[in-house]
Amino acid sequence: MTMTLKQAVEQELVADHDRLAAYLKLETVSAQHREIDETVDFLEQAFKSVGATVTVWRDVAGSHPFVFATLPAGPTGNADKTLLFYNHYDVQPPEPLDEWQTAPFDLTEVDGKYVARGVSDDKGELMARLSAVKALQATSGLPCNLKFIVEGEEEIGSPHIAPMVQQHAAELAADVIVWETGGKDADENFDITCGVKGIMSFELRVKTAEKDLHSSLAAYADNAAWRLTRALASLRGPDNRVLVAGFYDDVRVLTAEEQRATAALPFNETTTRENFSLKRPLVTTDPVAALVNATTMTINGLSSGYEGEGVKTVLPKQATAKLDCRLVPNQEPKKLAQLIQAQLVRNGFEDVEVVYLLGEKPFRSKLTDPFVQLAVKTAAKIYGDRVKLVPNAAGTGPQVFFGETLQAPIVAFGTTWAGSGPHAPNENIRIADYQQDAWYTAEVLRDFGME
Amino acid sequence: MTMTLKQAVEQELVADHDRLAAYLKLETVSAQHREIDETVDFLEQAFKSVGATVTVWRDVAGSHPFVFATLPAGPTGNADKTLLFYNHYDVQPPEPLDEWQTAPFDLTEVDGKYVARGVSDDKGELMARLSAVKALQATSGLPCNLKFIVEGEEEIGSPHIAPMVQQHAAELAADVIVWETGGKDADENFDITCGVKGIMSFELRVKTAEKDLHSSLAAYADNAAWRLTRALASLRGPDNRVLVAGFYDDVRVLTAEEQRATAALPFNETTTRENFSLKRPLVTTDPVAALVNATTMTINGLSSGYEGEGVKTVLPKQATAKLDCRLVPNQEPKKLAQLIQAQLVRNGFEDVEVVYLLGEKPFRSKLTDPFVQLAVKTAAKIYGDRVKLVPNAAGTGPQVFFGETLQAPIVAFGTTWAGSGPHAPNENIRIADYQQDAWYTAEVLRDFGME
Repeated sequence: MTMTLKQAVEQELVADHDRLAAYLKLETVSAQHREIDETVDFLEQAFKSVGATVTVWRDVAGSHPFVFATLPAGPTGNADKTLLFYNHYDVQPPEPLDEWQTAPFDLTEVDGKYVARGVSDDKGELMARLSAVKALQATSGLPCNLKFIVEGEEEIGSPHIAPMVQQHAAELAADVIVWETGGKDADENFDITCGVKGIMSFELRVKTAEKDLHSSLAAYADNAAWRLTRALASLRGPDNRVLVAGFYDDVRVLTAEEQRATAALPFNETTTRENFSLKRPLVTTDPVAALVNATTMTINGLSSGYEGEGVKTVLPKQATAKLDCRLVPNQEPKKLAQLIQAQLVRNGFEDVEVVYLLGEKPFRSKLTDPFVQLAVKTAAKIYGDRVKLVPNAAGTGPQVFFGETLQAPIVAFGTTWAGSGPHAPNENIRIADYQQDAWYTAEVLRDFGME
Repeated sequence: MTMTLKQAVEQELVADHDRLAAYLKLETVSAQHREIDETVDFLEQAFKSVGATVTVWRDVAGSHPFVFATLPAGPTGNADKTLLFYNHYDVQPPEPLDEWQTAPFDLTEVDGKYVARGVSDDKGELMARLSAVKALQATSGLPCNLKFIVEGEEEIGSPHIAPMVQQHAAELAADVIVWETGGKDADENFDITCGVKGIMSFELRVKTAEKDLHSSLAAYADNAAWRLTRALASLRGPDNRVLVAGFYDDVRVLTAEEQRATAALPFNETTTRENFSLKRPLVTTDPVAALVNATTMTINGLSSGYEGEGVKTVLPKQATAKLDCRLVPNQEPKKLAQLIQAQLVRNGFEDVEVVYLLGEKPFRSKLTDPFVQLAVKTAAKIYGDRVKLVPNAAGTGPQVFFGETLQAPIVAFGTTWAGSGPHAPNENIRIADYQQDAWYTAEVLRDFGME
């Protein structure tokens, strides 16, 4: 009796458990350049173990290596069709460490969940894809050509994706692209997502003196923390709207299809509030539209003066804020940084410096593309009627470089759920979601090959 | 040939150099309760070595010990008159450590200056006073009775001074009080200061969720760092004025004498700006009046989210600001904290919590008191015509508990200069100032005994 594809996937996931744990054990924090070489070696071995041809691209100046792997279609597969998977091997810093209930880099099973830094974003998904590949190999064979590109700088804004794609466009060529990240929303709908927001990360820096002063001198001396605070407050209204002239000028109005898809998206405020223990009202009356097409400006961090225990009566010489903006078509990161600096000057904060850290443009596939439609249709086999087509994620990835250069549609799906907390302590996925995602991946490949 | 008092002082300072170094070597950071017992032991020995009777008061619940020492007038001195010295043995934290050019707790001589944490505030001054006592003992004998009270919690707001003074009022009884802190201003005038501002230290705390969120969720989720930033900005106008209803209601108008003394105070903006490398315009058009009688509100520190290297796309669940207000007669610390909380609620920030950390009331001696006049007159022997009478310091100390309970005038003088940077890295005093201050102290005692 032949195994079903679902059964084969489940069997491979059991067999691959230790490999998942070993991958998560690597502390691949790209912001700190930790264990990069060890992780690249690990991936090279992992791809070779499923029969792939692997090349590590170290030819992009200043970049963490890219791991590129290819697998040809099997004897009964369609050798004319190629699907490219994008994943990243780097993770966010695990801090704050004291809020983890388990060791951040130890795969731990808690109440039907896998907990570890990167298990949701994005190490788990790549391992699920490899298990899906093995399940296809063990049953009907690979239904199409596969390519994998795995980068090591996604969490620091993919600063070398653009030159890498330029240099290796021929090798990367594919008909369709499957991206990392995705899963179930707060209402347990499985999302198939066709794009990403862009991002612009920056710092605001103020310096008012060369040394910290005794706070009694506040009688006459200006204060970097007050300057920063007031400068920040001048950039954003109480309604979450950014008060920077020209900030929204390049925002493209949604097409009719995008509007329809957006309007069909659910948003369960109660579940969302519970999952994140939100203490404040939402900052928008239309969260679904905001997730798809609102530009945000977020303070990621504030730092100034004395932050230790007890009291220190100091007047800080400097203050820094880290921020990011999430962008939508057709906003340009560098232009927004310039607009913010100009607005600060207009607001009287010529001493508050905008330091541009990184930027990525937004990307959105055409919702009418046949591969987008295939992904939605196939999902019904696994997820029934709980499948949603999302014009673009609220998050960011370097899709624009692939989508524009390779002229291919991109869909993203994965293993997360509303409580996954990627980037936060106790990052986790539900094991049942992980199993479904691996199965779905295998079914998408099969349907794509037979299409 | 008899030594002059000045010569005797200089001789004692040479002899006492190693004792000064040993005192500074102790890392007596009160906010962290470091090396308190070791410091108390050191002081007990130091006082005994000049013949004092020493008692360590450990009977004030929850307090670091108080060191109390007495010395009777010598045979030719005036046994009817008693002068009380107030000093503190604790220091501020040395952070940020990477900005020190020398080891913070090693007394280092650099370009005619002594550099070390506490050398200006306030360990150096007590050692200068002991050297002055020794010089008097070596020449004419002690001209009056002396008492010393040395506390270990000044840098954390002297939370136990009030009960200590209540419990030990009889032992502390004195005709006049000489306080710590003082020296030369940016224009090289020697200041005799007759009071202090009060203080109210507090935190603002905001929490918007139970976990840090991925910053893409800024599309709908509120942000603790934005809440804090806007709450802070709502409390203070661009002109340095606090926008809290009732905040200034209890400020007493200066008397005619106080106004005259204030108007006579110099303020050299150029020198001040150079000493502190100030990059911004002053926040007031009348810095002298502000130093004497303006209430300030200072952000001491800001902390939220990710403050490390590189980028972390996080939406922080919480944010904290540390602040202090410097108060003038007749403002009350706790009342101001309540007014700030009420104003935050009125401004729509009911989720921003005011956490009261500590408070001290302001104090100002009568400028017409005979001891105040004596201190000014004696100063002319050492400092010529560069002597200024300051109604009160811009800084804070627990003078009110002594001045009101003991019904005695208080004057403060010391060893600092405009570039001393107390509380900051590379805290220092000029050795020549240290010598002058010890000599002046000896002359004040002699004149007070003969008065």
